[in-house]
Amino acid sequence: MAVIASVSKDTTPAPSIEKLVELVSDGMDKVNELILSKAGSNVELIPEIARHLISSGGKRLRPMLTLACADMFGYRGAGHVMLAASVEFMHTATLLHDDVVDESDMRRGKLAARKLWGNQASVLVGDYLLGQAFKMMVDVGSLESLRILSEASAVIAEGEVMQLGAAKNITTTEDQYLKVIEAKTAALFAAAAEVGPVIAEQSDAMKAAARSYGMQLGLAFQLVDDALDYGGSSADLGKQIGDDFREGKITLPVVFAVGRGTDAERGFWKRCLEGDSLQDGDLDEAIRLMAKYDAITDTVQRARIYGENALSALDALPEGPHRDALADAVAFCISRVN
Amino acid sequence: MAVIASVSKDTTPAPSIEKLVELVSDGMDKVNELILSKAGSNVELIPEIARHLISSGGKRLRPMLTLACADMFGYRGAGHVMLAASVEFMHTATLLHDDVVDESDMRRGKLAARKLWGNQASVLVGDYLLGQAFKMMVDVGSLESLRILSEASAVIAEGEVMQLGAAKNITTTEDQYLKVIEAKTAALFAAAAEVGPVIAEQSDAMKAAARSYGMQLGLAFQLVDDALDYGGSSADLGKQIGDDFREGKITLPVVFAVGRGTDAERGFWKRCLEGDSLQDGDLDEAIRLMAKYDAITDTVQRARIYGENALSALDALPEGPHRDALADAVAFCISRVN
Repeated sequence: MAVIASVSKDTTPAPSIEKLVELVSDGMDKVNELILSKAGSNVELIPEIARHLISSGGKRLRPMLTLACADMFGYRGAGHVMLAASVEFMHTATLLHDDVVDESDMRRGKLAARKLWGNQASVLVGDYLLGQAFKMMVDVGSLESLRILSEASAVIAEGEVMQLGAAKNITTTEDQYLKVIEAKTAALFAAAAEVGPVIAEQSDAMKAAARSYGMQLGLAFQLVDDALDYGGSSADLGKQIGDDFREGKITLPVVFAVGRGTDAERGFWKRCLEGDSLQDGDLDEAIRLMAKYDAITDTVQRARIYGENALSALDALPEGPHRDALADAVAFCISRVN
Repeated sequence: MAVIASVSKDTTPAPSIEKLVELVSDGMDKVNELILSKAGSNVELIPEIARHLISSGGKRLRPMLTLACADMFGYRGAGHVMLAASVEFMHTATLLHDDVVDESDMRRGKLAARKLWGNQASVLVGDYLLGQAFKMMVDVGSLESLRILSEASAVIAEGEVMQLGAAKNITTTEDQYLKVIEAKTAALFAAAAEVGPVIAEQSDAMKAAARSYGMQLGLAFQLVDDALDYGGSSADLGKQIGDDFREGKITLPVVFAVGRGTDAERGFWKRCLEGDSLQDGDLDEAIRLMAKYDAITDTVQRARIYGENALSALDALPEGPHRDALADAVAFCISRVN
């Protein structure tokens, strides 16, 4: 008692997803088992690559959303575990294909699968995991969940193609950027959350609230990720700082810095992001310009707004530990940048 | 009358899929409309690439199987059209990813999409089409069809990974080769045929017969394709002769030629198929060795056996013009090589 009392009540602990992790830990154990078993195949290369990705320690935020958004309604079946595993497979397939498209060398602090096994295997194993995801969804038998997740699958790919079109083009607008991240990132967060009340057979209002929470959280998450690329430390992010910069990816920090810069600075951005070769010191200069124009601060500010929207959406969902944990997840996502 | 009578009854016309094309032509018009509309997107690049592939004049054999195998039971709904379009999208997505994996330059006599728009767009537009395929299947609402097609989707990817493992390895056996083509090609033919009786709510016996027909036809089709790579003319095949040879792909003609060759000849195959650079005259020498050991003849002979199996499977299906047309399709597939 004395020890506990000695901790000041005013100390605000760092935002964490511990509460969420704990609440869904039984379900996540089953999700992880299912993932390992469904990533199996007699074709050696498949489990090898799948294990590499699965053991690489992503936070598994998306499947946790599915479990929490079903558990909060007292759902007692096994469908949410299968849907959560499907969601994680969809995400993993996207990562495999993304790394090929972006020519990335690293993923979550490890060598990207394409560097270890080649682009070919990454494309095909991604396809396999996507096929397995759909098989699991079919096993659940909920056509509504299938509709939501297959829609997300098409939208994610559409977002990636959009991003490809915007790459190496510094005239990209904030609006275009938001459309890209809504499709490529937030759509899967939204679907992951929405299938919770769907499988728990809740009302349309509950489904809409969960979807909205996931969508807004996904937007905040991606904005923070994009800010971190110019400011986090490599160890935190699991990727090198400046990856987006080197790939000529136009993210919101860039949109702000380009829009607020002088002609000369725009020339710098054009050379770096639309050209083919970077020089020593370019990344440092980019980070300096970001600071000069509050590009990171304002990006994080946008993330906070989406975070607020996510919290508002939670208001419509049932009170309790799950809702509290989902609120913590919002704060956690945004705190990554601080 | 006189004119018709003048055509000798003994003249065997060249095998053709005309009868099949004609029988399902109304349905295929709807399939083609649906394909064009579902390949649409506000993201410009997507319809552009999709149109390139769709207008490139594949025979659309797979969706015709779906339509014929539903029509033969007097099916009157619209589900078979949507399933047929899904099947064609799955196939198109596979082609896009295959070209990236194989580093192909040509596809159906046109520049491959990846040569025109890059590997990145080919990967992502493939993903988009796969997502749209699943959306259409969900719209049909038949969980059994979804199960069959999602299973095929995973199996196809598995087959492609298997093929990758066997590539540039001349010790590949006939058995390994057959597993690859069963997965990468025949599984989709089988699924395309099976969903016909499924959507027409037929018995398990009918579903099994249609599936078996599709599977055996698919095996015959791929064997002939592999034979053509060492013997057809570029115009017929829509790809260059020797593509498989240049890519180090181990097909049945190669398995035969390697297995029956002398040590010196095996050295030649090893250099050509496992090495990185071909010399002038290598393809001619490969074709000469194929002829020396009847490798093409025997591959086509295997195709004929699978063709016979396909015809046997048809026996269990209802007599009538659809069954006759499906029988013609078998003869047509095999005749491509003559």
